[in-house]
Amino acid sequence: MSTTCKAISAESIVQTLRACFPAHERLALHEPFFGGSEDAYVSDCVTTGWVSSVGAYVDRFEQDLAAYTGAKHAIAVVNGTAALHISLKLAGVQPDDEVLCPALTFVATANAISYCGAIPHFIDSESNTLGVDAGKLSDYLKDIAVEDGESYRNKRTGRTLKAIVPVHTLGHPVDLDPIIEVCERYRLELVEDAAESLGSTYKGRHTGTFGIANAISFNGNKIITTGGGGAILTDNTPLATRAKHLVTTAKQPHPWKYEHDALGYNYRLPNINAALGCAQLEKLPQLLKWKRSIYSTYQTAFSETPQVRIVGEPDSSQSNYWLNALQIQGDRSFRDAIIESAHLQGIAVRPMWSLLNTMPMYLEAPAMDLDTSERLEQQIISLPSSAILGAP
Amino acid sequence: MSTTCKAISAESIVQTLRACFPAHERLALHEPFFGGSEDAYVSDCVTTGWVSSVGAYVDRFEQDLAAYTGAKHAIAVVNGTAALHISLKLAGVQPDDEVLCPALTFVATANAISYCGAIPHFIDSESNTLGVDAGKLSDYLKDIAVEDGESYRNKRTGRTLKAIVPVHTLGHPVDLDPIIEVCERYRLELVEDAAESLGSTYKGRHTGTFGIANAISFNGNKIITTGGGGAILTDNTPLATRAKHLVTTAKQPHPWKYEHDALGYNYRLPNINAALGCAQLEKLPQLLKWKRSIYSTYQTAFSETPQVRIVGEPDSSQSNYWLNALQIQGDRSFRDAIIESAHLQGIAVRPMWSLLNTMPMYLEAPAMDLDTSERLEQQIISLPSSAILGAP
Repeated sequence: MSTTCKAISAESIVQTLRACFPAHERLALHEPFFGGSEDAYVSDCVTTGWVSSVGAYVDRFEQDLAAYTGAKHAIAVVNGTAALHISLKLAGVQPDDEVLCPALTFVATANAISYCGAIPHFIDSESNTLGVDAGKLSDYLKDIAVEDGESYRNKRTGRTLKAIVPVHTLGHPVDLDPIIEVCERYRLELVEDAAESLGSTYKGRHTGTFGIANAISFNGNKIITTGGGGAILTDNTPLATRAKHLVTTAKQPHPWKYEHDALGYNYRLPNINAALGCAQLEKLPQLLKWKRSIYSTYQTAFSETPQVRIVGEPDSSQSNYWLNALQIQGDRSFRDAIIESAHLQGIAVRPMWSLLNTMPMYLEAPAMDLDTSERLEQQIISLPSSAILGAP
Repeated sequence: MSTTCKAISAESIVQTLRACFPAHERLALHEPFFGGSEDAYVSDCVTTGWVSSVGAYVDRFEQDLAAYTGAKHAIAVVNGTAALHISLKLAGVQPDDEVLCPALTFVATANAISYCGAIPHFIDSESNTLGVDAGKLSDYLKDIAVEDGESYRNKRTGRTLKAIVPVHTLGHPVDLDPIIEVCERYRLELVEDAAESLGSTYKGRHTGTFGIANAISFNGNKIITTGGGGAILTDNTPLATRAKHLVTTAKQPHPWKYEHDALGYNYRLPNINAALGCAQLEKLPQLLKWKRSIYSTYQTAFSETPQVRIVGEPDSSQSNYWLNALQIQGDRSFRDAIIESAHLQGIAVRPMWSLLNTMPMYLEAPAMDLDTSERLEQQIISLPSSAILGAP
């Protein structure tokens, strides 16, 4: 994106957005699409009485997810945050460890780290993928990481650097290969936050299948939804067994005894939500096509506007285009002018998340220089991306 | 219950159970009953696209729950464990506090305490209500509690005694008045674990409305179900506002900004689960009648068997009879013989929960003398209690 081209007005950008989908008077940011077996499957749960955390749809949803993503195991849970919490525990994250994660992500990424008693350590992102900048991270770790037995310590805080949680931001796969190199160099566990990237692949392989344990979300605003829901993906069979155990209150299998052998969680996805998920997953290939078509519409609309970049999928990746986004030149006040103007015209755009290191509960958390994240936070605007907008 | 009467065989008890509901070949422990608007309300969510954590059924379910229980506020969440976790936070429980709770309860009671970073301190129960023995607790606290500024400390561990979590066990209201006296004497916050007692009242007032913040569950095995779900009840408006904030990731209200001002949780109940809850709540008065009728059936069947007590509602209380239960004379081996024999005949009885202080993660937690809990754990057997068994 050139920085020399003529300024453009907020109104002009909003006019172009307004013209993208003339058949839709109001544009929500992201609404779910139910056009398949959702009602039939959900009714089936009610009719049979199998609505809760044991049921055929839970098993099927897990099998379907594993088959779709290529993960060996999928464990369905109540939401993406719970999936990430347990994934971090599976990766061995302990109280007082530090876990590297982007500052530019939804707050759940850092919260899940906090639930483990660990401390998020915020790292910078780069413009192309909107995800972790592995090159900058590598330089930073050269400076702050010191070897200490089996692992590396942050020499400034004395804490163990245990894991890294890259995020596939807005559905765009982060550049994983150099991140994996950093993991190997510093013995960091890799846990992917793939909450937003169901349907996205990196070098032909589904996101959420590279780390030791990884999280997907099926929240109401995601590409498919179970109402609320999430899943842990892992290729490690003992860890999958452990995950299922931890999310069902660590109850030991027995026909009638209630004995629990660890601090567990009530995180299992109810069958009625899994039923919704089974139906939604059947529609995913269609939804992905529609999402891609929405991207094309935005891309075409702004093709003559060099001051605006529509965020596209990185090389060697396929994005699910969960949330399309544009990048402006300028600062937060220009961004806010566009957002305010769009909202007045019924177009529900939004900025990215405020950087996590600026939130009260994370002000004391360690952070590297975050200049690219700061710029992206000011310049990226998420665009209406409900799948129906891309329907033929 | 006399201890002098003649021994009775396990087979004889199982035969009496078998004869209670001759029309049912197999007796599950507890299955949900859907006979109302469940399918219609759930379909409505799918048709309108409102399946996730914002929606009309969530609001309605909360209003209906508040109206039914008489609580000023109800906040719907993903499950009873989450409701208890947040209730404890609302009560001001901090890391390293001690929280008193029965050893004879489902593991979630203690787990929710652990999620706060606090330590469960196990106390004994009494035979009548199966809940906290306030008299014994009072004697114990005289011995171990020392005043320390605003609160009391456990002089053995040095930790602050912050709160108590009595449980309305199997739906039977615990004797709250003497517990409230103990709370006043030792400045303990009261948080009721009313997970099992929707529909149960103590001295005419609904359980879960006495403590500062209290938890109900709508898990699949409860008197009404939302698949998975729970609610926080409180009369304190600022705490209700705080609860709603904490369970929606502590996001500050704003049409488009994503700013969070505290460590929050992704605990909101999805609309599709709330829809189920609204329909179920309409049926609750009928379900309570059926449950009471099941109790009468068991009571009548064992009226000539003085060796067996069918657990009835305490004086001054109305129980929801969530799980009917019988108490035997004898030890764990006699209990297990009955359970094994019943299972062979398709009768899914179960013991109470193994005492929490015996589980690996709570072996180090402080505990008072638990002799009544130990006896009850060996002698109480929960009986098939699906509402349909009581239908006319």
